[in-house]
Amino acid sequence: MTRPAPHPPLPEPLVAALRERLGQRFSQGESVRLQHGRDESVHAPEPPDAVAFAESPDEVAAIVRLCREHRVPVIPYGAGSSVEGHLLAVRGGVSIDLSGMNRVLAIHAEDLDATVQAGVTRKQLNEALKGTGLFFPIDPGADASLGGMAATRASGTNAVRYGTMRENVMAMTVVLADGRIIRTGGRAKKSSAGYDLTRLFVGSEGTLGIVTELTVRLYPVPEAMSAAVCTFPDVDAAVNTVIQTIQMGVPVARIELLDALTLTAINRFSKTTLPERPTLFFEFHGSATAVAEQAEFVQQIAGEHGGEHFQWATRPEERTRLWQARHDAYFACLQLKPGGRAFPTDVCVPISRLAECIAATNADLAQVSIPIMLFGHVGDGNFHLVVLVDPANEKEMAEAEWINERVVERALAMEGTCTGEHGIGLGKKKFMLREHGDGAVDVMRALKRALDPDDLLNPGKILP
Amino acid sequence: MTRPAPHPPLPEPLVAALRERLGQRFSQGESVRLQHGRDESVHAPEPPDAVAFAESPDEVAAIVRLCREHRVPVIPYGAGSSVEGHLLAVRGGVSIDLSGMNRVLAIHAEDLDATVQAGVTRKQLNEALKGTGLFFPIDPGADASLGGMAATRASGTNAVRYGTMRENVMAMTVVLADGRIIRTGGRAKKSSAGYDLTRLFVGSEGTLGIVTELTVRLYPVPEAMSAAVCTFPDVDAAVNTVIQTIQMGVPVARIELLDALTLTAINRFSKTTLPERPTLFFEFHGSATAVAEQAEFVQQIAGEHGGEHFQWATRPEERTRLWQARHDAYFACLQLKPGGRAFPTDVCVPISRLAECIAATNADLAQVSIPIMLFGHVGDGNFHLVVLVDPANEKEMAEAEWINERVVERALAMEGTCTGEHGIGLGKKKFMLREHGDGAVDVMRALKRALDPDDLLNPGKILP
Repeated sequence: MTRPAPHPPLPEPLVAALRERLGQRFSQGESVRLQHGRDESVHAPEPPDAVAFAESPDEVAAIVRLCREHRVPVIPYGAGSSVEGHLLAVRGGVSIDLSGMNRVLAIHAEDLDATVQAGVTRKQLNEALKGTGLFFPIDPGADASLGGMAATRASGTNAVRYGTMRENVMAMTVVLADGRIIRTGGRAKKSSAGYDLTRLFVGSEGTLGIVTELTVRLYPVPEAMSAAVCTFPDVDAAVNTVIQTIQMGVPVARIELLDALTLTAINRFSKTTLPERPTLFFEFHGSATAVAEQAEFVQQIAGEHGGEHFQWATRPEERTRLWQARHDAYFACLQLKPGGRAFPTDVCVPISRLAECIAATNADLAQVSIPIMLFGHVGDGNFHLVVLVDPANEKEMAEAEWINERVVERALAMEGTCTGEHGIGLGKKKFMLREHGDGAVDVMRALKRALDPDDLLNPGKILP
Repeated sequence: MTRPAPHPPLPEPLVAALRERLGQRFSQGESVRLQHGRDESVHAPEPPDAVAFAESPDEVAAIVRLCREHRVPVIPYGAGSSVEGHLLAVRGGVSIDLSGMNRVLAIHAEDLDATVQAGVTRKQLNEALKGTGLFFPIDPGADASLGGMAATRASGTNAVRYGTMRENVMAMTVVLADGRIIRTGGRAKKSSAGYDLTRLFVGSEGTLGIVTELTVRLYPVPEAMSAAVCTFPDVDAAVNTVIQTIQMGVPVARIELLDALTLTAINRFSKTTLPERPTLFFEFHGSATAVAEQAEFVQQIAGEHGGEHFQWATRPEERTRLWQARHDAYFACLQLKPGGRAFPTDVCVPISRLAECIAATNADLAQVSIPIMLFGHVGDGNFHLVVLVDPANEKEMAEAEWINERVVERALAMEGTCTGEHGIGLGKKKFMLREHGDGAVDVMRALKRALDPDDLLNPGKILP
């Protein structure tokens, strides 16, 4: 990764103005800056010049206006759990930490929606929903903030049934580059009233505006849920089970693939004793009869592909334990190489190409020396590689880059995407032209210029 | 409606160039122009200066480039079934008729998607899908073109279960204002790779680019389907049945309200003998047991609200007859006033406000002299009014405008939208600021300037 050009220090009048406005909630301390200039990946930290802890949309707007007067970049910060360098202050500037904006503003149980501040995390929202009979399904590995999840168009294990942040954000409050505050969308379930600003800001990674509040869809907790684990003789058999399940239209709620090495990592980290073989995790939601019917049908499909040891978890605590293990997979993998860092990548392909894509990827993995785990949301055609590296080891980094390039090129050749849910950040900018073509990227650049003419909102991200 | 300022005739060199390029597929004939300058509503026709019948994306691009050289507006035309004046050539220019671009380019049955040219209609696509076990669910009243449906973010009776064009367009080929052709999106089920251009063009009504091809999601034909009709003592009872069904999370495929006058219109037009009372039409999709379970549950809810005469239609021809009658409701209503025109409007509100919104609307309807039918996709909180008027009668037009204003204001006050599925066009521009606020409309204007700096793509629409 090339070092960016050095940038000038923050102007003193800006520092003074921010300090006056925020008091103790403005910091130039080394450790605070470092914490806000790194993410959960292998990207080398790039600390911002300062961190501003905001407590309201008006305060975010005031910070943006002050920084703009001095042509200083601003970078929104939620939980710090992104993995493509989204948070790195490559041109310096002020990190706006929204984690203190963590109030659930309204739960409209009868309309199946909730409005939250951007710093509310997915687990916090689900805690707040206890007793309402509703839940929020989007669940990336980390307990990310909903603002950050909107910014990266996050998804997770439930997306195969409930969609991603694209489908589940209804409305937003956004601070624009000039400090104006707008509302996008609304609480009607659908609308044909003008350009879809909500979906323009979802996935824009803080480069077009800063999300400060959002309204998301909720779902009734299903009458019945059951989860199952099933092992397979090889990855191909597991993937073909997934493909057939999806093509038959079974409304499975979750269907996750984990390869043998991921199971090893999970067993060590989560003290489980799951067979260390290619495995599918399933979950079914619906009425009691619908769940039983779906489960039986999928078990039959799995059996035809050599699936065995179907283990059921219908009690809530068993299900929770299983899915907690799945959510911890990323962190479990990290433990396999103490002192190492993860180079995570994710791609997504049309389901018909998934078996071929994963088989060819596994052939690549056999050619490198570093440990690599493969797992993911295969019901969507989306899978992850977690490549464990010592960032100081050039050979390991070169192998990781090679694997990343190979898997992305293959996904693109199969009409897929270079990232299903992690986002572009810094790490995948180089694939944007190959995925979208010059014309579409030019349109994205025109949108960026239209909404952020001075290039101050999280500069250097997404656009090559 | 005010007449626009007169516009200059088409420059002769442009006419010559278009004629040379298109031959017989370029027309300045009166009847062709008139046909392309009117829609299915009460808006006074505004014919374009000429009509160009395009046969490929390259040809659309060439027409756009030629028109741009001469600063002449272009207006995309699909099936001509829009209802808010979307097609009217308020600043003259060339209507680009895409109805000849009607090839189904690819059906990827294993991936549950299809790629079509923009002129393919929804019924044509479903014909092409026969034998694949798949269907395309989005069904506005008319047999609209898929390009036009994308442009207006259309939905229909199935949206409560399958979403709208927003959720069901995966990728597009779009001709930009400068004649460049771009691809947006892709065939992966999800992606976090940059700005969501697909959803920016969906709903943009031809003002940001011209959709020439699109890839849409398909769904497996359910194992079982059953439809039912149930009458209620009043509209309120029917609406409360809908609200409870949605709030309980029943995955109903269709749930449509029709008021008594709409039933009268339908009986006359479709030769049916349905009771002329407030009625719900239902449809359930799923496995045989799931359908039976859902139907029984909803019947019970309906019973608690005084619903009676639950009539089932499980045989395909019965179901088809029922839904054909529903789809023909708009045209059926028109027949109630021979020689009249329809002033259709649609709004959408959060489901918790639906009963109150419809009750207050019915109180308004009692105050006017003109016949007005109320029906719609109430599972989404979306309903239509079809106001029958003689456009030459000032009193009737004033009453229609009053009703439209009242219902929209009420929907906006309830955090709803001024249009659930018809779009803005000319007719609802005046509500854009009230719905979105100055800031959000300014952002939309900035997007328009960024992508169409000369204001040549369907000018005068959406933005006030």
